[in-house]
Amino acid sequence: MTKEKINGKSHGKYWKLEPIMHPKSVAIIGASNNPDKVGHVIMQNYIDAGYDGKIYPVNISSDGSIMGFKSYKSVTEIKLGIDLAVIAIPAQAVPGVLEECGKAGTKGVIIVSGGFAEVGETKLQDMIAEIANRYTMPVIGPNCLGVMDPRSRIDTLFLPTFKIDKPTIGGVSFASQSGAVGSSILDMIDDEGFGMARFISYGNAAVVDETDILNYLAEDIDTKVIVLYMEGVKRGKEFIEVAKRASLKKPIVVIKGGVTEAGAGAAHSHTAALAGSYEAYEAVFRQYGFTIAKDIKDLLNYAKIFETQPLTTGNRVAIITNGGGTGVLATDALYKNGLVLPELSETSKKELRKVMPPIVNIRMPLDMAGDADDTRFSAALARMEEDPNVDAVMAIALFQTPGADSRVAASLIHYGTQMKKPLVVVSMGGSYTQAHKRMIESSGVPVYASPGEAADALAALISYSRYLKVKGVRGKGD
Amino acid sequence: MTKEKINGKSHGKYWKLEPIMHPKSVAIIGASNNPDKVGHVIMQNYIDAGYDGKIYPVNISSDGSIMGFKSYKSVTEIKLGIDLAVIAIPAQAVPGVLEECGKAGTKGVIIVSGGFAEVGETKLQDMIAEIANRYTMPVIGPNCLGVMDPRSRIDTLFLPTFKIDKPTIGGVSFASQSGAVGSSILDMIDDEGFGMARFISYGNAAVVDETDILNYLAEDIDTKVIVLYMEGVKRGKEFIEVAKRASLKKPIVVIKGGVTEAGAGAAHSHTAALAGSYEAYEAVFRQYGFTIAKDIKDLLNYAKIFETQPLTTGNRVAIITNGGGTGVLATDALYKNGLVLPELSETSKKELRKVMPPIVNIRMPLDMAGDADDTRFSAALARMEEDPNVDAVMAIALFQTPGADSRVAASLIHYGTQMKKPLVVVSMGGSYTQAHKRMIESSGVPVYASPGEAADALAALISYSRYLKVKGVRGKGD
Repeated sequence: MTKEKINGKSHGKYWKLEPIMHPKSVAIIGASNNPDKVGHVIMQNYIDAGYDGKIYPVNISSDGSIMGFKSYKSVTEIKLGIDLAVIAIPAQAVPGVLEECGKAGTKGVIIVSGGFAEVGETKLQDMIAEIANRYTMPVIGPNCLGVMDPRSRIDTLFLPTFKIDKPTIGGVSFASQSGAVGSSILDMIDDEGFGMARFISYGNAAVVDETDILNYLAEDIDTKVIVLYMEGVKRGKEFIEVAKRASLKKPIVVIKGGVTEAGAGAAHSHTAALAGSYEAYEAVFRQYGFTIAKDIKDLLNYAKIFETQPLTTGNRVAIITNGGGTGVLATDALYKNGLVLPELSETSKKELRKVMPPIVNIRMPLDMAGDADDTRFSAALARMEEDPNVDAVMAIALFQTPGADSRVAASLIHYGTQMKKPLVVVSMGGSYTQAHKRMIESSGVPVYASPGEAADALAALISYSRYLKVKGVRGKGD
Repeated sequence: MTKEKINGKSHGKYWKLEPIMHPKSVAIIGASNNPDKVGHVIMQNYIDAGYDGKIYPVNISSDGSIMGFKSYKSVTEIKLGIDLAVIAIPAQAVPGVLEECGKAGTKGVIIVSGGFAEVGETKLQDMIAEIANRYTMPVIGPNCLGVMDPRSRIDTLFLPTFKIDKPTIGGVSFASQSGAVGSSILDMIDDEGFGMARFISYGNAAVVDETDILNYLAEDIDTKVIVLYMEGVKRGKEFIEVAKRASLKKPIVVIKGGVTEAGAGAAHSHTAALAGSYEAYEAVFRQYGFTIAKDIKDLLNYAKIFETQPLTTGNRVAIITNGGGTGVLATDALYKNGLVLPELSETSKKELRKVMPPIVNIRMPLDMAGDADDTRFSAALARMEEDPNVDAVMAIALFQTPGADSRVAASLIHYGTQMKKPLVVVSMGGSYTQAHKRMIESSGVPVYASPGEAADALAALISYSRYLKVKGVRGKGD
């Protein structure tokens, strides 16, 4: 199928996803009044989200009305034409319906139904690809959750809305071969205090694949950071071409499923992906400046620093802390990541000596003592902002201590949003700490639950900044 | 000081900490009516906790009453004698007061005051050690938070109570050279759903050191798991002797601050610890079956599996999941940790085929599909419990999916508490997921926020089980 698509004259190398991401009208094929049906959940999502385009429920056994909307037996009955068709019907019936979509001039399709290559039904999947190519009609799926876009309010996810915290609007786009990984991430995004641009769960990638999606997200103006979960790449050469171009435009964070032989076997059973040698993937990722995540939680840790903080190629990270031991662990974490503590300027030393109590040693890491309050935090942050020897700042604010309160949070927010150097916060603890973490993150300053995670994130930011510099591209703040 | 103590005839090699952990009476030296004073906060902690021993506030400038209690100018005035004295006064005044404690026959002392070796005042610290040894009086500190014990209700932590979630009673004991690391962990314990036995922040370790504490916790019946944060070891030979003995009795999780050269420098400035070569430490930790944590959050991840789950020396970990991609990542995580997927028994395959829908491939990892409900989870868990080829289970329950609800949580709790094999749960997400995580963890089944963390924890459990087996010790469930 791949070959046909590449050779397809009509749509070039990469599928255009605009009709899928910003449709003016949507047909939901498999829509139903029965709330247990996937088509019902998807209809409800569109209604709940306040989607302002036309909605056409389609069901072969419909009697003219579904969920209060005029319904159709086939897309071919819809006279005005449709931008997007979402297909949620049994696998065997999909090719016939897809053919109808083609005849009706549908501009893009999402097939959420499973039961294709992932269960050995490769012929059925090949039929889909053939139809899509013949009509030059981009198709996402099958065996996927589809897409979500908080701006255009499209949402084909057939997940109960009360189980997922809705993400706010932001700059992180997430493309996932796996619906499960995708929905977990989606659910965690809100808690991490940053916002989403596009969410694309693409499943078996019978037609539109990871390369098409990366190509789309690279050009998408709302997308500032691209996060990918992939189990395999269908078109190696094209992926590299797009990866090279995309990573010069915005940071790309990737996690690959099927890194071990056993994992690759599981991936094949999951989305019929041919995982290939991980070493080859890793080499490509590294060559093109991707940030490689080793675990799901790392995706969010990396995404949030890239979304909010300026780039820097310098690796001198100042640590200011109200907890000595945490400062020690943070120092270890920096050096393990190839980062270093700065030698503070003489001016900084002099100024800090004036404002810190005698018990505070004026050195790095700056342990401001367990009773440090917002005055000490602000004074230290102001110095780090000015000091030419400091490239980035890790501020450890342990809210268990007597002096740490919302004024400390406000100080971190002020410097973390104004400063031209990256600032990350480390805070760990229970409910009092979590309340402050949310306050700080919702203002656009990333908070990490351990010094190790904060150091990893800073290292990723610096590494990507250096990649851009070597390539002759200047990033924001660099 | 070290030498004097080792040679001290009167108290043997290791300080007895019983009078400090279970005192029948407490003198708080530096107690005050002024709520900004550390001594006030400590008094208030004892009152709030419902401590049922005698409380004696001591302050040189007291007028006979502090916070409603009869007060004293010196411990020597207290006629009935005291078990524990908590000292919270300026550093310069500490030696004189400690001498008085010795004269008054005080059985143990905690010095929370800072201003000793960590700021270069080594002489002052040496005076403390000399007095403690002369009177055979165990002293914890200086420059520490002291101790907390939810059973005996002692609490010398001078941290505002509204900022810290109180831990429940349980089996994890935490000893920390750093007060900051200690209080963060303390604050996170409740959220992780497991309970605490003893908390000991020991600071500069002028008298009682990490070896004494490890020796105490090894014998302590309430302590099931020992967690240590240390920046250095004062007595290498004795530490090894105790480590060897302790790790045969209970699992020990350790994180070392000052692993890098820069970190070691920071540690010296923090608690005047001589960090030494980390390679040497690591060799000792590994030789005696310690679990080495690389980041603060790992401490809790390891502690909770050790507190709740049975041991096993087998490394065949079954994965059951309601999310395919997460199963792929979990498989990768297992193999990266030297663990493997089991080959299910023929009986298991037959039984699972009967209960799972056709779309489910009967293989490992067992992807039960996105609509898996409690029936599927229970059927799979029952088979994993029976199957002789399965040593441990990782259950991935993504609560974003339609079938995952409180009944799935109940099923996980049932098997995770009854089964003779270790079970860990992986769930990640927002508020709906967090509610279920708490439900499961408070019942004694550990939940991890990523497949990687769950695999790390299982690997640690299996590694420790194997250590015990090699040493000829049988652990529970092994």
